[in-house]
Amino acid sequence: MNKEKITIAVDAMGGDHAPRITVEGVCLALAEDPRVRILLIGDEQKIKAELKEHAAFGERITLVHTPDEITMEDHPKEAILQKPNASVLVAARLLSEGKADAMVSAGSTGAVILSAATHIRRISGVNRTALGTVFPTLNERQRPGIFSLMMDIGANVSNSADDLVHFAYMGTSYAKKILRIAEPTVGLLNIGAEEHKGNETMKQAYKLLSSRPDIDFIGNIEGNDLIKGKADIIVSEGMTGNIAIKTMEGTSEAVKKIAKMAMKGKLIWKIGLLCLSGGIKKLMKVASYEEYGGAPIFGFDKLVIKSHGRSSAYAFKNGIRAAVRAVEDDMIPAMREAIKKFETEKS
Amino acid sequence: MNKEKITIAVDAMGGDHAPRITVEGVCLALAEDPRVRILLIGDEQKIKAELKEHAAFGERITLVHTPDEITMEDHPKEAILQKPNASVLVAARLLSEGKADAMVSAGSTGAVILSAATHIRRISGVNRTALGTVFPTLNERQRPGIFSLMMDIGANVSNSADDLVHFAYMGTSYAKKILRIAEPTVGLLNIGAEEHKGNETMKQAYKLLSSRPDIDFIGNIEGNDLIKGKADIIVSEGMTGNIAIKTMEGTSEAVKKIAKMAMKGKLIWKIGLLCLSGGIKKLMKVASYEEYGGAPIFGFDKLVIKSHGRSSAYAFKNGIRAAVRAVEDDMIPAMREAIKKFETEKS
Repeated sequence: MNKEKITIAVDAMGGDHAPRITVEGVCLALAEDPRVRILLIGDEQKIKAELKEHAAFGERITLVHTPDEITMEDHPKEAILQKPNASVLVAARLLSEGKADAMVSAGSTGAVILSAATHIRRISGVNRTALGTVFPTLNERQRPGIFSLMMDIGANVSNSADDLVHFAYMGTSYAKKILRIAEPTVGLLNIGAEEHKGNETMKQAYKLLSSRPDIDFIGNIEGNDLIKGKADIIVSEGMTGNIAIKTMEGTSEAVKKIAKMAMKGKLIWKIGLLCLSGGIKKLMKVASYEEYGGAPIFGFDKLVIKSHGRSSAYAFKNGIRAAVRAVEDDMIPAMREAIKKFETEKS
Repeated sequence: MNKEKITIAVDAMGGDHAPRITVEGVCLALAEDPRVRILLIGDEQKIKAELKEHAAFGERITLVHTPDEITMEDHPKEAILQKPNASVLVAARLLSEGKADAMVSAGSTGAVILSAATHIRRISGVNRTALGTVFPTLNERQRPGIFSLMMDIGANVSNSADDLVHFAYMGTSYAKKILRIAEPTVGLLNIGAEEHKGNETMKQAYKLLSSRPDIDFIGNIEGNDLIKGKADIIVSEGMTGNIAIKTMEGTSEAVKKIAKMAMKGKLIWKIGLLCLSGGIKKLMKVASYEEYGGAPIFGFDKLVIKSHGRSSAYAFKNGIRAAVRAVEDDMIPAMREAIKKFETEKS
């Protein structure tokens, strides 16, 4: 692959503030990295109106017109069938045809997963794709970064032990290539620390993960360990991962609400909050998903990055940057290798 | 039952600060409610040394001497077999023999469950006991109280749909009798809001719960709904409930740590925190488990209350009060009735 030119298929219409934010993010990415080429997919007129606001990037942007899009209100399964030319599906198709090296969309998770599943096959050996998310932690173990990656957080309900090992390998490749962590650690989300804890899948996954020399498995991770940042990667069945990540989000949001309630309280509390605002902003920045642009849908044989629906242009740009890093560092080939090795050795 | 005298078997030796805290809690309970009688079980000498510090309650306290106790360091399964006269086991035995109306222990969860299982049978029809916990919420729905009860949080790994319905009935009785909520609502912890979400157990539980006229089922509850306080009772399989509650605890603790870190920061942040301290204390009080004394181990045919291992004397007293309320309001008979009715009607 010619890595002097890395082409990203961008779903211009996906996300809460598309195409304004997506176009701005694309322009930021182009300005940042001269290697980047963009296939910008969506409503030509709307996209052109947005492009006017930014510097021209000439032939580095190729507009791919399609009037259809899948909105947050659409039911993903039905919309995929009814709108085969929706921007997110076109992005997946261009990726499958080799016209792009990766795709990025801030559309609904369901639409992105189903679009990819429509056009792109899974990595050989992988039975289940997984949704990952990166979240900020207290990093008590002083790992290289403050973020942890958890997967699966809801593409599946339940998973097999083999699935969880696949997730560990794919997560490890991701952490090495995109998060640039040399030796990422892996934990298993479970009901207790000891190796005999959990259901049969958990026990079997614990055994398998412990036996793999190329996975730095540190054992079970309990709910209260997540925010401490004990592991770089946490593998989980879809149901438990989903409940854990949503519980964490809900609790963090509750704290923000409580702070707002305090603002309506006594004058001295208001003064206190004002004094603290610098510190709070700093904390918010640490805890921001901004720096982080998105996470791959793991398991497809081509790179699919899902950005948050509420992404800012900066976050969306970072999603494109993550895609570029993954392409330049051969992340998908690394995942293929690792899965193939495991599947060969286990049998 | 003569409700002019309610006798509680108290494991004096269980908990991080036993018997100091447990004895003090007992004395607070005796002072508060003239109906209370206590069987105080543990090392006679140690207990007597503590009792000296408090007012005398004469024959309202009956000391039951046993030199054995199960500590937090003991492995519960082994300790139960090796120390048949440990204080927590004696408490369960006295309860099973009808010498007491309920038991309260702040010992390790494993030891309390196994002690109860050794001596006390389950409510007829109930296949699995459940561990419950009460946690503070933002109470966005303006329910009668700010607390929600979640069960099971780890007595089991997985559960059947029938188990979850049993939990809903037992939780409803508990909320009515002890929390004094007239019409408690029930939610099902799941991966999404729609009724088709989750594994087969979840789908089946959703159907069963929806069909029961005597359960006020409000549907699925997602992780981020927990802290909002959408339902009075949340039923969950042990694994998901455990991960959710620990994630919530971990995230709340992280916020406290971040506040402490801010104290080490700039002077203006320190001033801000000082101004806020009154408000923070108020919030902490709202969020305190103090008011709440403990939760039953659900499913036994006699009332077993597990108090937190780090309980203060005030919290432990409240655990005894919860036991008294449950006895005076016939909570266990109500649970028996509800389960019997469901088991009859479903077949």
